Amino acid sequence: MATTSESLQEPHWFEKNIAFEFIDSTLRGCAQVMFQNNPITGLFFFIAIFVGAYSEHIPDVAWGCLISTLTATLTGYFINKNRETLRAGLYGYNGCLVGVALPTFLATTPVMWVSIIFGSIISVIVTICITNVLKNWNVAALTAPFVITTWIILLASYAFSHLPSIGLPHAMLPQQLAARHSPIFHFTASDWLSIFDGISEVFLLSNAITGILILIGLAVESLWSALFALIGSSLALLAAVWLGGDSLSITTGMYSFSAVLTAIALGAIFNKPSWRILLYSVIGVIFTIFVQAALNIALEPLGIPTLTMPFVIASWLFLVSKSTDTK
Amino acid sequence: MATTSESLQEPHWFEKNIAFEFIDSTLRGCAQVMFQNNPITGLFFFIAIFVGAYSEHIPDVAWGCLISTLTATLTGYFINKNRETLRAGLYGYNGCLVGVALPTFLATTPVMWVSIIFGSIISVIVTICITNVLKNWNVAALTAPFVITTWIILLASYAFSHLPSIGLPHAMLPQQLAARHSPIFHFTASDWLSIFDGISEVFLLSNAITGILILIGLAVESLWSALFALIGSSLALLAAVWLGGDSLSITTGMYSFSAVLTAIALGAIFNKPSWRILLYSVIGVIFTIFVQAALNIALEPLGIPTLTMPFVIASWLFLVSKSTDTK
Amino acid sequence: MATTSESLQEPHWFEKNIAFEFIDSTLRGCAQVMFQNNPITGLFFFIAIFVGAYSEHIPDVAWGCLISTLTATLTGYFINKNRETLRAGLYGYNGCLVGVALPTFLATTPVMWVSIIFGSIISVIVTICITNVLKNWNVAALTAPFVITTWIILLASYAFSHLPSIGLPHAMLPQQLAARHSPIFHFTASDWLSIFDGISEVFLLSNAITGILILIGLAVESLWSALFALIGSSLALLAAVWLGGDSLSITTGMYSFSAVLTAIALGAIFNKPSWRILLYSVIGVIFTIFVQAALNIALEPLGIPTLTMPFVIASWLFLVSKSTDTK
Repeated sequence: MATTSESLQEPHWFEKNIAFEFIDSTLRGCAQVMFQNNPITGLFFFIAIFVGAYSEHIPDVAWGCLISTLTATLTGYFINKNRETLRAGLYGYNGCLVGVALPTFLATTPVMWVSIIFGSIISVIVTICITNVLKNWNVAALTAPFVITTWIILLASYAFSHLPSIGLPHAMLPQQLAARHSPIFHFTASDWLSIFDGISEVFLLSNAITGILILIGLAVESLWSALFALIGSSLALLAAVWLGGDSLSITTGMYSFSAVLTAIALGAIFNKPSWRILLYSVIGVIFTIFVQAALNIALEPLGIPTLTMPFVIASWLFLVSKSTDTK
Repeated sequence: MATTSESLQEPHWFEKNIAFEFIDSTLRGCAQVMFQNNPITGLFFFIAIFVGAYSEHIPDVAWGCLISTLTATLTGYFINKNRETLRAGLYGYNGCLVGVALPTFLATTPVMWVSIIFGSIISVIVTICITNVLKNWNVAALTAPFVITTWIILLASYAFSHLPSIGLPHAMLPQQLAARHSPIFHFTASDWLSIFDGISEVFLLSNAITGILILIGLAVESLWSALFALIGSSLALLAAVWLGGDSLSITTGMYSFSAVLTAIALGAIFNKPSWRILLYSVIGVIFTIFVQAALNIALEPLGIPTLTMPFVIASWLFLVSKSTDTK
Repeated sequence: MATTSESLQEPHWFEKNIAFEFIDSTLRGCAQVMFQNNPITGLFFFIAIFVGAYSEHIPDVAWGCLISTLTATLTGYFINKNRETLRAGLYGYNGCLVGVALPTFLATTPVMWVSIIFGSIISVIVTICITNVLKNWNVAALTAPFVITTWIILLASYAFSHLPSIGLPHAMLPQQLAARHSPIFHFTASDWLSIFDGISEVFLLSNAITGILILIGLAVESLWSALFALIGSSLALLAAVWLGGDSLSITTGMYSFSAVLTAIALGAIFNKPSWRILLYSVIGVIFTIFVQAALNIALEPLGIPTLTMPFVIASWLFLVSKSTDTK
């Protein structure tokens, strides 16, 4: 932190164009959570997050997100010299999600705010590390740096009394769903609205308006991305109902958010849209539902959430596999 | 799925030689579970599985195995253009094991049958992914794609009420063996028969006749493989008794199946037999017993079986390590 | 084992210079636990371990350490031809720690002693494997081979009645610290002594004199290493107090040992000391505290200790990330 505040006092930082450039990089950082290199998209996402967080009465989530995206982008300026990566917002998006996740699960304490700033710095170091490791196989870090950084801080919160949790799931041993919940689920017309909740859950919010604002932001840069986000969320909803997932998870979009990201990644970003790719993406999205359910269970004894790891696992598998496809 | 059935209607698929080729590839897929590129070996393995499954009154296991080997081989035809890999059965063997494992642990429901077909397709994608990743270190995917695919589906079964389990271990916290079982174990002459159960457990069956049929199938293609299978199973039995494993696990071959695969892999397939290699394989087999016990415990809180992961871990370690040996 | 004792009877092994060379390699093996290629440093470390183990009335720990370092070094002579690696003690340091850890957590039985020798051999194979895997990213295996080998044997001890544990943590589900302990912690002047306990905990001992002897051993070869060991341990102490860690863990040095290793690795060994590197190392050390707490919690359901894995994770992340830094 010391260096960053020192450097802020260097005169060239106050030149107008650098300040604009920094804001532009930060907005792109938020947009890159869903793979878009566009500051307007980022602005829509920030608005969506503030609307969602304030309507759920958790303003810390919105402010945490803003602070962490700024911190991660600033860290990018100091830690690395790859200007293109920096300007595309690729150092910012993992920090952005760290700042959303920590105030969602931890109590608002001074240590929590320091953890947001520290976690944002760490997320940049982890991003550079994972990018290096994956270079050999020509795949991106996706949101793995966010998940790893946040899992470490959330697990650590169990051991640190000055960093208490408020919303972490209670650690338990897995049990058959049938033994826990009534699996009967009446799917009504209004439940279709949860397709938008599923999109907003990418930022850990369950709010249809937030989801719609995110879709508009996506459409600004890429109609294919907006379309695949809708396909991913709808398909996840149907698959989870058909497999017999519990209704609370389904209607709050818990089965959809990773599927949304897989759908955009496989269908619109890392492959060119085609019928063959559409089929491949559909298989990938359904696989993401299985990974989501599996990781929900696998993390039960640890008392932490999956975050977007199901998306990361499914997309890595499908992208590395695809990279040798000779067709 | 759609593409595969469409393509089946293409005229050249009904030409006799293609049909024979497909059956041949499928049989080799079953044989590759134990590293053999030979359709007769595959035929013996299928017979062994049907004999074992019907004598244990679990016919779904045999039919699941047949369907999944066919599906995975068919997926291989459509997803990838590497003809040599395809014809050697290397897209089929992980699917083969998925089809054995799911009906062993899950109740027979329509969703379970769809999961077998879906899991077989996924196993091919995971195989291509892991093969790509491991190319740098010159090691094969082994049965890791089967284990990863099956673990995901079994864990997911805890969350999906339409995919209930019947035979999964109850999730629990590890406890010292001495606190759970009487460790006294009288090893009688008839217990030597469990050497063959250990071999049949590669296909999750505990049946001496199945084990003997598998050995014959191995001997058809490679006497060294049959010999190392026997060495692996015997050594595992003795080591587990000496270390004080529980008698039920030992006599049903639960300590042997991964050791059998490690012994064949290290002793007969990926290295040329020699005294030095024999010693290395013996150390690898004993290490596999420790990994088997460790993974049995590590997975207790998750309520899923190890499958063949102990073999995969031990063999990867020993094969990557061996690849730099300059002797 | 057979080959090694056979070979010991070959005449050239009794030539004086070979014997001296072997002892020298073994001493360097102990020194490499803290990255030093110096037999005098190794001698100080062995003395520190014997002093610590005898004063804690656990002599088996010291003798286990000696036997395992010898075994691992001997295995290095037979398994690999890279003379430079061997002479630098790089095959010995993981075995050294296996021999410290097993008698700390397992009861003294014949099977335990065989496990120490077997584990030391395995640690060399794992070292070669991990070194091969990491070659692409230009980072060292660190103590990962020790951790992996020891975790496997400790987990297996739950399943083997002839290998009972004495000191393993009781498996449990994570709970908030506040619900378990009183977080009130009065930090007194005498608690500063636990800085040295933190250094001795690298060898799983909690003894200030052992810590001071280790520091002297470090200073013999590298003053920077000794300085960063002190910085790491002090910083860990302060950070753990500020975050609200439990007082028993803090005063016995449980938050410090991984931080000590991270500090030496990042600050003095794999990077040239500079102000920029000092800042990077400080961030790395604080991150190690978070990883330590997180892994403490994540392993609770398995009933095994973290060993030095927090150091390995934090250092790998920071070293791989640093390797692209163009400044």
